[in-house]
Amino acid sequence: MHPDLLNRDLKEAQYAVRGELYLKADELRKSGREIIFTNVGNPHNLGQKPLTFIRQVLALTTAPFLMDNPEIVKQFPADAVSRARSIIKSIGSGVGAYSDSRGYPWLRQEIADFIQRRDGHPSNPDHIFCTDGASVSVRMALNAIIRDEQDAIMVPIPQYPLYSAAIRLYGGSLEGYYLDEPSGWQFKMDELKRSVNKARKAGKDVRALVFINPGNPTGQCLSRATLEGLAKFAYEERLVLMADEVYQENIFQSERPFVSMKQVLAELGGPISKEQELISFHTVSKGVYGECGLRGGYMECVNVHPGTIDEMYKISSINLSPNTIGQVALSLMCNPPKKGEPSHASYYQEKQTLHDSLIRRAHIMTDGFNALENVSCVFTEGVMYSFPRLHLPPKAVEAAKKAGKAPDTFYCLHLLEETGISVVPGSGFGQKEGEFHLRTTILPSEEKMKEVVEKYKSFNAKFMAKYK
Amino acid sequence: MHPDLLNRDLKEAQYAVRGELYLKADELRKSGREIIFTNVGNPHNLGQKPLTFIRQVLALTTAPFLMDNPEIVKQFPADAVSRARSIIKSIGSGVGAYSDSRGYPWLRQEIADFIQRRDGHPSNPDHIFCTDGASVSVRMALNAIIRDEQDAIMVPIPQYPLYSAAIRLYGGSLEGYYLDEPSGWQFKMDELKRSVNKARKAGKDVRALVFINPGNPTGQCLSRATLEGLAKFAYEERLVLMADEVYQENIFQSERPFVSMKQVLAELGGPISKEQELISFHTVSKGVYGECGLRGGYMECVNVHPGTIDEMYKISSINLSPNTIGQVALSLMCNPPKKGEPSHASYYQEKQTLHDSLIRRAHIMTDGFNALENVSCVFTEGVMYSFPRLHLPPKAVEAAKKAGKAPDTFYCLHLLEETGISVVPGSGFGQKEGEFHLRTTILPSEEKMKEVVEKYKSFNAKFMAKYK
Repeated sequence: MHPDLLNRDLKEAQYAVRGELYLKADELRKSGREIIFTNVGNPHNLGQKPLTFIRQVLALTTAPFLMDNPEIVKQFPADAVSRARSIIKSIGSGVGAYSDSRGYPWLRQEIADFIQRRDGHPSNPDHIFCTDGASVSVRMALNAIIRDEQDAIMVPIPQYPLYSAAIRLYGGSLEGYYLDEPSGWQFKMDELKRSVNKARKAGKDVRALVFINPGNPTGQCLSRATLEGLAKFAYEERLVLMADEVYQENIFQSERPFVSMKQVLAELGGPISKEQELISFHTVSKGVYGECGLRGGYMECVNVHPGTIDEMYKISSINLSPNTIGQVALSLMCNPPKKGEPSHASYYQEKQTLHDSLIRRAHIMTDGFNALENVSCVFTEGVMYSFPRLHLPPKAVEAAKKAGKAPDTFYCLHLLEETGISVVPGSGFGQKEGEFHLRTTILPSEEKMKEVVEKYKSFNAKFMAKYK
Repeated sequence: MHPDLLNRDLKEAQYAVRGELYLKADELRKSGREIIFTNVGNPHNLGQKPLTFIRQVLALTTAPFLMDNPEIVKQFPADAVSRARSIIKSIGSGVGAYSDSRGYPWLRQEIADFIQRRDGHPSNPDHIFCTDGASVSVRMALNAIIRDEQDAIMVPIPQYPLYSAAIRLYGGSLEGYYLDEPSGWQFKMDELKRSVNKARKAGKDVRALVFINPGNPTGQCLSRATLEGLAKFAYEERLVLMADEVYQENIFQSERPFVSMKQVLAELGGPISKEQELISFHTVSKGVYGECGLRGGYMECVNVHPGTIDEMYKISSINLSPNTIGQVALSLMCNPPKKGEPSHASYYQEKQTLHDSLIRRAHIMTDGFNALENVSCVFTEGVMYSFPRLHLPPKAVEAAKKAGKAPDTFYCLHLLEETGISVVPGSGFGQKEGEFHLRTTILPSEEKMKEVVEKYKSFNAKFMAKYK
């Protein structure tokens, strides 16, 4: 197992979110430095509390014998107990048994009902796959689509590097299309057209188009018109649409509320609504749940051939079953406490408090960046990241070159060393040649956030002065 | 995404444990038939209760705020509360945050300590990877090793079909070596030699040797001498050893207690102990824990190049983190209640009761099979399966052919239709040409087991009479 003898695709795959910067930060942490990890959207790691109702039900579902003890039962709200009882009844054999490889049948029905309530259009539970986090769903779909390096997948640039890593791992080709920063990272149809044509000219079979809404790392929310444009483009070009919609609850503006691609397709009507293939992804890790550690995600396949569903079912069966606790968490995300139930008010209050705070933090962060010399930042309309542009002076670019680093990596390494803030350089997500960015989460607490902004301010001033 | 356009490796991968028989059984279940699922080692699904201490600690770790309530705390044994507190302290940010992609650092240290206590030799926590069940570990290792179809992996026949499925999925070649049924499914060195030579003659680069101890589906426990033979063979032939040791606590005889390959290598001394590459797998799904649904597994890499460890770390980071609840369960498996702690006696009593019952069930099952006409069964010395041989009469083989089925699939389908017992045909695991088997778990409760044996008896008598 010498590294020289390993699978080439595996060696070439890169995953920047836990790449050089993260490893360096972890090393500093081990040596005793206080590190502010804003490299990955991991809210509980930065002090965010889980929603109480979710954890109450999870605890009772994990240890159902607790509900035989009246002394314990009376310490819980009645709806947490009745919910846990009903989940245990649906599972039948407790969370220690494997579920169906696609996830519990009753859960897939609940997810289908949730999608139908959200979109106003039916959803088929047999076309839903639950997985250990949405990342596994994305990988499963790409693994099915990609045959060899002639197969290209269109991915936005900047993108979430799960896509580049997985496409590389499965031996396919990534064809990037650029998002337009001056218009707030919008999708431009002529750029999509340029990208697909370029790949085809190079002899590629372009199989799928990935888009992320709201955008990771770019934070933009897509309008219905943009989504319709994407749908029509995919239909004309015969591409599978892969809709990364994991941040659908993280929306910090009101002009463009979240609309799912599933809904857009259904409402376009006609052949496109019945033929356009779509796989969309969702998770309990994002929103204000932040239950990253539980690894609960799903994908819904729309207009996908039943034979393909069968093949993916077979492949999911090799791992036997997604973890059951993540599945129970998905059930709770799809079915919050109802009006009139004892936990209803507190549940929504907890959600609202977290959501309002995220909005304030999005403002603190982007305002903070825009106040810095040589830094500009599109407002973070959604998700949990800001992606400022670093207008690095030529001397900084030169110094980076000498150090053998990409210029934004150079900036981010200095930032880490001087402030303890761990971020991901823009090069990990992709960006236009000669442009530089970084991605940070907006997840430190509000008090901490002010400290973070101050740290950026003094670091950036020194850095820019040095390389003026 | 038409099935004709999917990845060929994915389409060709087969996973019999949830294959034709399982799908048929699931269909019958949906139509209202009572099905006894003995196709997969899923103990809780057949009524086995989880160990109380494990679930107490998991519940408190999932909802730590419960421990702020003295009324709740006093309903738990003190060591469950203190254990949950200490785990929460180690985690720092609760189970909702991603862990390191290899698993929590403190947990990997605990696993290393557990391995050292078991084997008497040190273990390096940085060479341990926690994953969502051991299946993911196996897949990760095979994915790293296999470059293309010239790379061959030696696998026992019969084998656990995770191996054949994953090798196919990653585009490698499986080279089978036969286990010897007359000697109780023992490993024969000349057969290993034949197998490696055959592959090399066909131009293959033989990269690794998989063995399963105790054997799945075959149930044999390996002696230290056999393990030494395997180690020396792998060393001479320069093969990575992949040790599937997930059933290490499921041992139903006392002549050959479990010895890990790690220990064998260390005690062989000399260059083999320092150079032979080994990856071993373990899990909370087996033993008497049966926590399949939690998906907690790990692999330990021994004598593996640090560059390769780094590559596997990178790949594991694409999924961000294994699920945290499975990791906490691993911690509890490695650290049962200590002598003097309040849960100590009850914990070991629960374990012993389950273990003793499994031993009785292994006897009921194999005795039952050996009492049947044209069926013989090697005693199930370990694991949770019996793998009887079906000496099918020529007329049955012919009838199967006419029905377009493998003869053992034909037998198993009839068994399912007439008795509701769902098993896996031997062809799913591999067997010698012209021989037929089936795999069943020994997991139904003891009362149910007697009913199962009766059902086999009347079904088999009818089947054998029909095709005499």
